[in-house]
This record gives sequence, structure tokens and C-alpha cells, in this order.
Amino acid sequence: MSDQLTIKDIAKYCGVGVSTVSRAINDDPGISPKTKERVLKVVKKFHYIPNNSARNLKIQESNTIALIVRGLNNIFFQSMFDGFQTLLYKNGYDFLIHLVDENTAVSRSAIELAKEKRLKGVIFLGGQMEDPAVELDQLDVPYVLCTVAHSMYTPMPNVNLVAIDDAAESCKAVKYLIEKGHRRIAIITGHKDDRAVGGQRLSGYKRALAEAGIAYDEDLVGYMEEDIPEFTTENGYAVARKLLARTDFTALFCISDITAIGAYKAISEAGLNVADDLSVVGFDGIDLGRFTIPSLTTISQPKDKMVKSSVDLLMKAINGDDTPRQLVYSASLLERESVKAIER
Amino acid sequence: MSDQLTIKDIAKYCGVGVSTVSRAINDDPGISPKTKERVLKVVKKFHYIPNNSARNLKIQESNTIALIVRGLNNIFFQSMFDGFQTLLYKNGYDFLIHLVDENTAVSRSAIELAKEKRLKGVIFLGGQMEDPAVELDQLDVPYVLCTVAHSMYTPMPNVNLVAIDDAAESCKAVKYLIEKGHRRIAIITGHKDDRAVGGQRLSGYKRALAEAGIAYDEDLVGYMEEDIPEFTTENGYAVARKLLARTDFTALFCISDITAIGAYKAISEAGLNVADDLSVVGFDGIDLGRFTIPSLTTISQPKDKMVKSSVDLLMKAINGDDTPRQLVYSASLLERESVKAIER
Repeated sequence: MSDQLTIKDIAKYCGVGVSTVSRAINDDPGISPKTKERVLKVVKKFHYIPNNSARNLKIQESNTIALIVRGLNNIFFQSMFDGFQTLLYKNGYDFLIHLVDENTAVSRSAIELAKEKRLKGVIFLGGQMEDPAVELDQLDVPYVLCTVAHSMYTPMPNVNLVAIDDAAESCKAVKYLIEKGHRRIAIITGHKDDRAVGGQRLSGYKRALAEAGIAYDEDLVGYMEEDIPEFTTENGYAVARKLLARTDFTALFCISDITAIGAYKAISEAGLNVADDLSVVGFDGIDLGRFTIPSLTTISQPKDKMVKSSVDLLMKAINGDDTPRQLVYSASLLERESVKAIER
Repeated sequence: MSDQLTIKDIAKYCGVGVSTVSRAINDDPGISPKTKERVLKVVKKFHYIPNNSARNLKIQESNTIALIVRGLNNIFFQSMFDGFQTLLYKNGYDFLIHLVDENTAVSRSAIELAKEKRLKGVIFLGGQMEDPAVELDQLDVPYVLCTVAHSMYTPMPNVNLVAIDDAAESCKAVKYLIEKGHRRIAIITGHKDDRAVGGQRLSGYKRALAEAGIAYDEDLVGYMEEDIPEFTTENGYAVARKLLARTDFTALFCISDITAIGAYKAISEAGLNVADDLSVVGFDGIDLGRFTIPSLTTISQPKDKMVKSSVDLLMKAINGDDTPRQLVYSASLLERESVKAIER
């Protein structure tokens, strides 16, 4: 007797031949509906998976939810891990964190992982998809997109989504700088071809300028470097250096706090002081922003609420509620010390 | 027919009574060795787990290694996740990250998790154990302690361990400050009762002072606050404020970089400049230390090597090599900008 569960075992248990089991599994018409039902019940009960492979050792039913995280070392996303762990455990689920680098499609990673690990659900943290419903068509477990730019979609995709309005919140940040008298406002944004978070936050920047009658100047736009991991201090530092070398400005909007911390360094190396010489606004609201010198004025995402809603939506979906919901939260401008008003 | 696999199914498949299966499972003598063997083979084959509970849905064999991480938001540990994921995947394993807060014993978490998830192995990141071999006696899968203070143990525990010598490395950092002319050197260390990393790094501090003939002054010792998560910027900030209010010193040794970043803030708020007025040395070598202003002189742990060795040791253990090994690496002093020499 083999150690592995084979089709023969199923056949023996059911008291039928191997070919009957095979017909039942393969939806072959040459088998009575009643026999088919009986065989499939046994197949299910014994977690038998056709194909006599290592998969037999795996479970058919797992209790695992995957957190697919775009970026290998994104401090903002990492600060959400604890919240996800607590809530998913509370709901009786295991969870695994799967980091995806920026050159890998999160959708493909999710589809493969879901099959391999027989996941119960997926939560995406970040990541760009042209059309989530299409790209994730083969993902046959419920999922929620969390912190995925939603405003690149018109209309909004009919999937579970928890987000902020990246364009509107960026517009808010830049308007705040304009109110403080700034007109030469630079931006550190995502890659040049980024239509997701980077693209959306750039569009909010443009909107704020346009509404204030300030001409858009491509010289003031710093795109993250392609050869440095995105949304890192290192990238912010590199882009800020180039901006400072290229043109003059009195304010800088960074589309992530961790990037702003890199910009602080470049500003300091240029012999300037943040706030007194150059105002800086960040985005995300990570804890570190309280401790930069000066502390960082930023757009603070409602992280805890977003974690909770993502888990809630996923639980609903897992429990059979198949009406996707899109929750778009407001972020708040945290006024700290990194912005100074200037004379117009 | 129930959907769940029950003892009756096993009995039916074996052609024996339920009580015979029960005897086989419970190692009851009232059953012939031959029958017992036959029944247990079927039990194993069908992944049947006694106790008609939800456990029946779980697998007997998983392919999962758990990373048990002490601290909910430890940036140094988080920076190792990517390396662990890459190497464990490469070795054909899944991995899950399990965060443990500082009030929970990592050993108990590991033992529970290993049973629940039928883990193949465990890697600990951080965490204090009085006697790992005893505390982890019930952990019946191979494990490796990574970045766990080893020098609190005399003799070193006979378990797989990958570490640096926390006391020696701290001694190195403080000696460097002494060489630069500093004699009033404060320290931000772990909780007062910490015998692990905090205690070891404090002992290295004491040793360096003693060897230089500098009297130990308890006033210069800042223990991390009990009511703020350990090893966080916030805690470093709070402790540095107290130290600055209490006494004078020309240098500060912080036992983690992220704590040093909090100390920078307190130093700035006190109207002082890091380096010019007060030298600071950190510990860990996180990426952010390159971008603080001034950049942070620190003890850099050989992170990548430690990740690789931890995985290698675990693989050896899983593959049956039951000789535990203890690998203690050297860390290196990264001289950056946060230390200035002073006149003696």
C-alpha cells in the first residue's frame, strides 16, 4: 500500500472501479449522477486531489489569507502587518505575508499563490492593475484591494476596494502649500509611467496648481529613479538632489514620507534648512514623521480604519456576500513643523 | 455521510471496528501489531487526525517554516523579511511571519504555532529565553535562534544559534567614543530587567568604561520606558529627554538605530546639535542611518549573512543533521558623521 492517497483508495472505499472514479472527477457522462455524487463526496471528504503528485500531501481546505505586499521593504505597509495579524487571527484565519518586488505583477503572484496554498482569500497592499476584475479573473478566491490607487479607474472597478483618493489628497497637500504663499512647488512622484499611486498623486498636484492659476513646470517634477527601489529613502534622496541641482523652488511635496526623509538629507547637504529655506510635505503618516527634524507635515492615511475595513470586506466575501464594495476614506493633513509661510 | 473524515471512515476503509482504530491510535495493547500497523498506515494516508474537530481539515504534513518575530514593528527585523522569503522559497518552503509583542513569550508562541500549523521548522528573530533548550523542549521541530543575545548564556546553549556578540560589539562602540575623547558617555539600553540584547549591550558598555578606568555612573543609564513599545523611535525619544534633563554628557550610545533616531529628536529639542554638541552611536546598521542628519555612526550587523546562515542551519536540521551549531559573527563599526572628537 502506497503512503500516498491514490485514485485506487477512493475506488476501494466507494466500492467502484478506478475508471468510475476517474469519470466522476472528469465530469464524464458515462456515469450515473447518483454514483458520481457519491464518489465526489468521498473525494472531497478525503481531500483527494487528482494527479498523484506531492499535492496529495497538501490540504484542500486551508484557513489562510495572504497579504500580497508590493515592495520588499515598504515601511508604511509594514506598519499595517500587526493590525492585519490581530484582526485575521481574531476571525479565525491564518495569514501569510508575501512580498512582491516592483517588477513582478501582483496579480500573477496572487493567482499562483492562491492555487499553491489553497488560500481562502487575498488582501493586496499596493500594486497597479490595469483592470483588476480582468487581471484577477483567474483568482478564484475573494480578495480586497487595499491602498491601491482607485482614481485611475473610470468607472471604479467592481471589486472590493479600500483606498483613499490619492489625487484629491495630493491636491489638498499642494493647496496647503499654495495657501502658505508657495508658488514654486516641486514634487517627488513615482516612476514616469506610473498610473497608480504615483500617477494619481501627480495628477492631484497638477490640479492644485491649475486651480491656483500656477503654470505647470515639468522641471519641478522629480520622478523616482528606475534603478533604485521605489518609495525608499534612498530614492527620495537621489531625486531631491537632482531637483535641487536643476531648479529653484520654495516647497517640495513628496508622495511618501519615507521619500521625504531622503529629501531632508539632500536638502541638508545642499546647505539648506527644511522649513526655513524649503518647506516639505510628505504623504502616508508613518510614525517616523513625528521624529524627523523638523517634524514632517504630511497627509495621514487612516491606516487602522483601512486595515479593519479590508478585513471586514474580505470576511463578508468569504461568507458568501458577493456584492463588491468600494470604500474611499478621507486622509487628513497633519500640520507639523516642516512648512513655513512665505511672502507672496 | 458526514463531510468530515471521522474515525468511522477509517474503520470502514480498514474493515475493522471503530474501537480497533481507537486502540491503534491510542497505542492500546489490545490490538495485534499487524492490525495496528495497517490501521496507522491508513490513518496516515488519509491525513486523519484524531479528535473530530476542525483539525480534520488541516494537513498532517505542511511545508511551512515560521519566522517568529519579537516586536510588532521592528524595522531592523523587517528589513530581513525579504531575505528570508527569497531563501526559504528557494529551498522549497513556504514561510509565515508571526509577530509577537514584547509581553508574550516567544517560546510559547512557537510551540503553539508549530502544533497548530504543523510547521517544518522555526526561526526566531529576537526574544529572550532563560534556557532555550528547556523552554523549547516541547517544540518538536527544528529551530534556529537568530539575533538572540547569546552571551547571556554560560555555557552557550546547545541549540542552533546565529548571533553577534552583543556585549563585545557594544564594548567596541563605547571604546570608539572613549578614543574620541569622551568620558561622560550615556547609554539608552533595554528595560531594566532585560538580560538579553539590552542587558548584554549594557554589559559591553560597562566593560568599555571599566577598561578605560572610567567610573560607572547609573545616572548615565537610560532604560527603555516600560509603557512604550521597546526598540522604537518613540522610546528612544522619551529616554533621551529624561537623560538630557537629568545629567550632562558628551556622547550617547543607543543600543538600536531606530532608538537613536528618537534621541536625535530629543537632542534637537534641547537646542543641541548631534556631533557638534553631543556624539551619538547607534546599533544595527539599518538603511535609514545613512539618511539621518548627521548620518549615524553605528555598529552594523551582518544582516544578509545572518539570514543565510539561519536558513542553512535550519535546512541542515530539517534534513536530519542533529548537531546544533552556534555561529557568532562580527559586526562592524560604521564611521559616519554623528561622532566628533573632543579635547580630553
